[in-house]
Amino acid sequence: MENMFWIGFVGFVLAIAFAWMQKGRVMGYSEGTEKMQKIAASIREGANAYLKHQYTTVAKVFAVVFVILLIMAFASGGEMLSKFTPFAFLTGGIWSMLAGFIGMKIATNANARTAQAASESLNKGLRVAFSSGSVMGFTVVGLGMLDISIWFFLLHSAFGITDANQLANIMVMNGMGASFMALFARVGGGIYTKAADVGADLVGKVEAGIPEDDPRNPATIADNVGDNVGDVAGMGADLYESYVGSILASFALSAVAGYGYAGMLLPVLIAVCGIVCSIIGSFFIKTKEDATQMSLLKSLRTGTYLAAILSAIVAAPLTYYTVGNWGVYVAILCGLVGGCAIGYFTEYYTSDTYKPTQNLAASSETGSATVIIGGLSLGMKSTVASILIVAAAVIISFFAAGGGDFSAGLYGIGIAAVGMLSTLGITLATDAYGPVADNAGGIAEMAGLPEEVRNRTDALDSLGNTTAATGKGFAIGSASLTALALLVSYVNIVEGKGFTMDLSITNPTVLVGLFVGAMLTFVFSAFTMSAVQTAAQSIVVEVRRQFKEIAGIMEGTTDPDYASCVGLCTQGALHEMVAPALLAIIVPILTGLILGPTGVVGLLGGVSVTGFAMAVFMSNAGGAWDNAKKYIESGHHGGKGSPCHKAAVVGDTVGDPFKDTSGPSLNILIKLCSTVSIVFSGLIISFNLMSLL
Amino acid sequence: MENMFWIGFVGFVLAIAFAWMQKGRVMGYSEGTEKMQKIAASIREGANAYLKHQYTTVAKVFAVVFVILLIMAFASGGEMLSKFTPFAFLTGGIWSMLAGFIGMKIATNANARTAQAASESLNKGLRVAFSSGSVMGFTVVGLGMLDISIWFFLLHSAFGITDANQLANIMVMNGMGASFMALFARVGGGIYTKAADVGADLVGKVEAGIPEDDPRNPATIADNVGDNVGDVAGMGADLYESYVGSILASFALSAVAGYGYAGMLLPVLIAVCGIVCSIIGSFFIKTKEDATQMSLLKSLRTGTYLAAILSAIVAAPLTYYTVGNWGVYVAILCGLVGGCAIGYFTEYYTSDTYKPTQNLAASSETGSATVIIGGLSLGMKSTVASILIVAAAVIISFFAAGGGDFSAGLYGIGIAAVGMLSTLGITLATDAYGPVADNAGGIAEMAGLPEEVRNRTDALDSLGNTTAATGKGFAIGSASLTALALLVSYVNIVEGKGFTMDLSITNPTVLVGLFVGAMLTFVFSAFTMSAVQTAAQSIVVEVRRQFKEIAGIMEGTTDPDYASCVGLCTQGALHEMVAPALLAIIVPILTGLILGPTGVVGLLGGVSVTGFAMAVFMSNAGGAWDNAKKYIESGHHGGKGSPCHKAAVVGDTVGDPFKDTSGPSLNILIKLCSTVSIVFSGLIISFNLMSLL
Repeated sequence: MENMFWIGFVGFVLAIAFAWMQKGRVMGYSEGTEKMQKIAASIREGANAYLKHQYTTVAKVFAVVFVILLIMAFASGGEMLSKFTPFAFLTGGIWSMLAGFIGMKIATNANARTAQAASESLNKGLRVAFSSGSVMGFTVVGLGMLDISIWFFLLHSAFGITDANQLANIMVMNGMGASFMALFARVGGGIYTKAADVGADLVGKVEAGIPEDDPRNPATIADNVGDNVGDVAGMGADLYESYVGSILASFALSAVAGYGYAGMLLPVLIAVCGIVCSIIGSFFIKTKEDATQMSLLKSLRTGTYLAAILSAIVAAPLTYYTVGNWGVYVAILCGLVGGCAIGYFTEYYTSDTYKPTQNLAASSETGSATVIIGGLSLGMKSTVASILIVAAAVIISFFAAGGGDFSAGLYGIGIAAVGMLSTLGITLATDAYGPVADNAGGIAEMAGLPEEVRNRTDALDSLGNTTAATGKGFAIGSASLTALALLVSYVNIVEGKGFTMDLSITNPTVLVGLFVGAMLTFVFSAFTMSAVQTAAQSIVVEVRRQFKEIAGIMEGTTDPDYASCVGLCTQGALHEMVAPALLAIIVPILTGLILGPTGVVGLLGGVSVTGFAMAVFMSNAGGAWDNAKKYIESGHHGGKGSPCHKAAVVGDTVGDPFKDTSGPSLNILIKLCSTVSIVFSGLIISFNLMSLL
Repeated sequence: MENMFWIGFVGFVLAIAFAWMQKGRVMGYSEGTEKMQKIAASIREGANAYLKHQYTTVAKVFAVVFVILLIMAFASGGEMLSKFTPFAFLTGGIWSMLAGFIGMKIATNANARTAQAASESLNKGLRVAFSSGSVMGFTVVGLGMLDISIWFFLLHSAFGITDANQLANIMVMNGMGASFMALFARVGGGIYTKAADVGADLVGKVEAGIPEDDPRNPATIADNVGDNVGDVAGMGADLYESYVGSILASFALSAVAGYGYAGMLLPVLIAVCGIVCSIIGSFFIKTKEDATQMSLLKSLRTGTYLAAILSAIVAAPLTYYTVGNWGVYVAILCGLVGGCAIGYFTEYYTSDTYKPTQNLAASSETGSATVIIGGLSLGMKSTVASILIVAAAVIISFFAAGGGDFSAGLYGIGIAAVGMLSTLGITLATDAYGPVADNAGGIAEMAGLPEEVRNRTDALDSLGNTTAATGKGFAIGSASLTALALLVSYVNIVEGKGFTMDLSITNPTVLVGLFVGAMLTFVFSAFTMSAVQTAAQSIVVEVRRQFKEIAGIMEGTTDPDYASCVGLCTQGALHEMVAPALLAIIVPILTGLILGPTGVVGLLGGVSVTGFAMAVFMSNAGGAWDNAKKYIESGHHGGKGSPCHKAAVVGDTVGDPFKDTSGPSLNILIKLCSTVSIVFSGLIISFNLMSLL
């Protein structure tokens, strides 16, 4: 079946062609009034400038790691590390970067167009924003297919590595570059967007009492730039990494399970079939001109679910054709259903149409402290659903696909993650459309468009929050499954090098590794949170200074100095993103050098388990705080400006780094730790303290 | 060596005699003015009434579990469960309850006496409060020795169970009753104390702007009652459980390591030697009449460290005499040093004499949201020190005591926990003295004693916060070590029943267990936090009602209705404590019934690791918020009543359930899960879904 992998290129061509078409659709709309164009241009400029700086900083770190890998690979004659890995590290990083960059490009071009289209009708606004999201969604999956296919043919046909096991073990290391880039993009972008948001809110909303996105707020452009570099570019890089990571992890497990090329082809086929089904689903996202918000949501859901159902149907013959095991098909279904289920519960815990968020809003009656306690406990409770769903998916996939065979069961877990992400093209489109709608609202406000338009963009934005919940469900769920698959791959690779390990959980080395993994999760979260705080405080100081020193800002007669806030956010994000990113590389290596490969396995277990719970907790707490505030703003508990609203704003501010910086970064952390461990396994086997005992 | 266990009774007699002596010392002081006596009587009454209700509720739950155990034991003819276990479950619960009850009794008698003594001199105040703490400290260790010795002789001599392995495996199950009682006491008391505290603060301090412990606040008596039922009775039951648990866990590991009775005698000898050394240390706690706060601290530290050093010296010949392995001695030292080190770092992260808490106070300049983010990230960062210390203790103990032998190494981990808790008599005395000083301050304020007295009680209180940090270090550190020892005992017991397990971390059943363990930690924390919130909200409503409806409260002409708040706290705590406590029993059993014993091992690993990190995070974040607020109150960042102070009060309020309810309860949770799993292992082996596959 090794000759069937050209199908990956077909997936790439289809996805990119569809993205191109959607891009044309977006660009066909007008950018609106001169003022709107000017604002959009400022946002675009700020976002471009930030990404340029970010990529420069990241390039330096990549260069250092590349050289280290190069030395490891060539000094050991390929013994310690394949000679291809340093280069794969670079390409993975570049594709991941590109996925985010293209998404950001189109989003910064679509925001004013969405505002303009929304001034004509709600439906048109939706179309522009959704098309923009589609560009990113399909670019991500297209580039993913391209990367995998190129490396496959390079290694298999150009360099003649025809042993499936060897090929898979080299390819699984390719994930490291993408994960590393994604971590920088998520953390850096997350710090940027939340520093701007928190800074703007703390002074603008809380102290000065002016509305969100008010043009008098000096941090407002930075805030809108942040949506693009964090929620768009960060998310693109992140999901590129998830997508490729899940496919590569199942490559590695296929060899061990004895499926060889057939088991490697299956995830590629599922991905391509997912691309086709996502495109079909997209065509079903149509609404009438007089659409209400509910009918818009229904239309988005129709598209997404249709894609998932079609994928589920087509996956059956594909599975039978490749691995000939219906249990594997059950695993794929587990992934698809599990992703939808996590999405549902994410929505349940974070949407103000359900009790939990409504109760959280009610807790604002006794002040901000109870809002905080309430949100923390809501987030912690919400881990139950996600963890039980993932647990069920793991157990069912394992037993269905394995049927007694251990390795085949593990392949089932890997393929479940692929199933979960197969329709990423369309789920990511619905997710990426949110920040565009959010930005459109900001532009409408700043450009002084009629209230009616702002109401429409608000409706689009709030719809985005709902669909984003589903998107997050897929991202978090697949991250945990992929992390487990990578953990197993690590064990296989280490044992393949002739190193035997006692992986029993009663082995103190494993136990200590578990502790270190939990610690890494907490420290990483702490670093990312305090990074936001440090950066936000500099914005607070600057906004206060401008309000005080620049006369006429509050009267609206003088423009504030937007550029200084944009500059501060850029500086802050770049300065603060490096430490947490390095943590993710250094801790696994250091653990390995001290505790040996066995300790690393413990670490991977600890970081996967604690990281998953923490990611769900932080994302859901943050989402619920945000929506509880919006619920109050919509007129409950005294509405805007009431003491309850003030209390809820505190919750929302705490939730910002939770849901947009720390939480989503944890998804990447758990996979990056695994790929780093895999790449450095040769080094760790050769040099570790435990081997001296 | 099985004839040497009478030494346990010697430990009991010495400890109780010393406690009795200290009690006499406390009761020799006057309770002060009539008003002070009246207030003290109200607090005593409230505390007694609560505990009576609490014990009634707990008794019902105990009765149900007792009957279940009885059925399991007798219906299976002792196959599924030893016939002694149901009775040991009861006695464990009773001793644990008694430890807390006696501590509470003396504390409620010592509070007014401390206030009165402090009106004479700082030194006298310290003596009364410390003597009261000693009563509890030595009662806990004395009762622990009694329980272990009685059961040893009952089983060994009366029932003729002379096989060390069999004896140890029966005795390790005795921990369950103590843990279960401790969980109720910690959770119930923790909810009570924090509901009262949060409720009193939110309305009194924040809304009405009256000082803490102001007699006009209707919740002030409830607040003082809370200190006794939560921080004293809860802590006593908790540490009784830790103490006995660590000794019993090393009993169980001794048999497997091949040390037999010698390895069981060692922890008893260390405990008795610790009692003697603690008594000697206590005599060195002397100060001059003109003592400053620093010299008081020095004197307390002299006593504590002296006891630890003496213990360390005497442990050497004891170890050599019993197990003849110097590596085991290294493990004991690891425990002692590790406990002190965690205590030091706890202080570093939570005391306002160090940077972290000072920076946290500074973050109040930008409002309450940044105080919350700052505290959360401080707490998360602080996990590094504790986890690395425990990790080092585990690895060093294991390799030193084992020297290549796996089981002997595990015994090292168990004995390290015993070493850590050996001087519990004196460390708990310094810990339990805090709430007494706190109460004394409350009484001084309510009785209108001169400001000078209040300043002295404040000094005593603040000293208590520092020493409590050390106490917490020992409690948290020993909990994690004991939990690991119990996890290993569980595995040994299950495998001893002829059930083989694949405990590899790559086994999906283990992995899913790990996930469930992490989930349990998050859900348990959520339950305990939201319990505090629910109970606190009822207090808020009641206090607001009284301020509004009872004329003359604010003018001080009419007394508020203290009893109604006491009643509401009692109701709230009793109502809310049952669910989280049951969670700790039901989740392990349910996990076992679905995933089998292998899944339970994963669960225990997950809850130990995530629970430990979470406990450290919550305790330290809460402590830092508390002290950051006090730092501001002492005149920094605008002092009392400033916007910074208001922001810091929000942090303190969020921190209350963190540090006094959820955090400390997690220490018990991780051990209770283990003992529940051990007790129900027979049931789980016989009935589980996995065995059907």
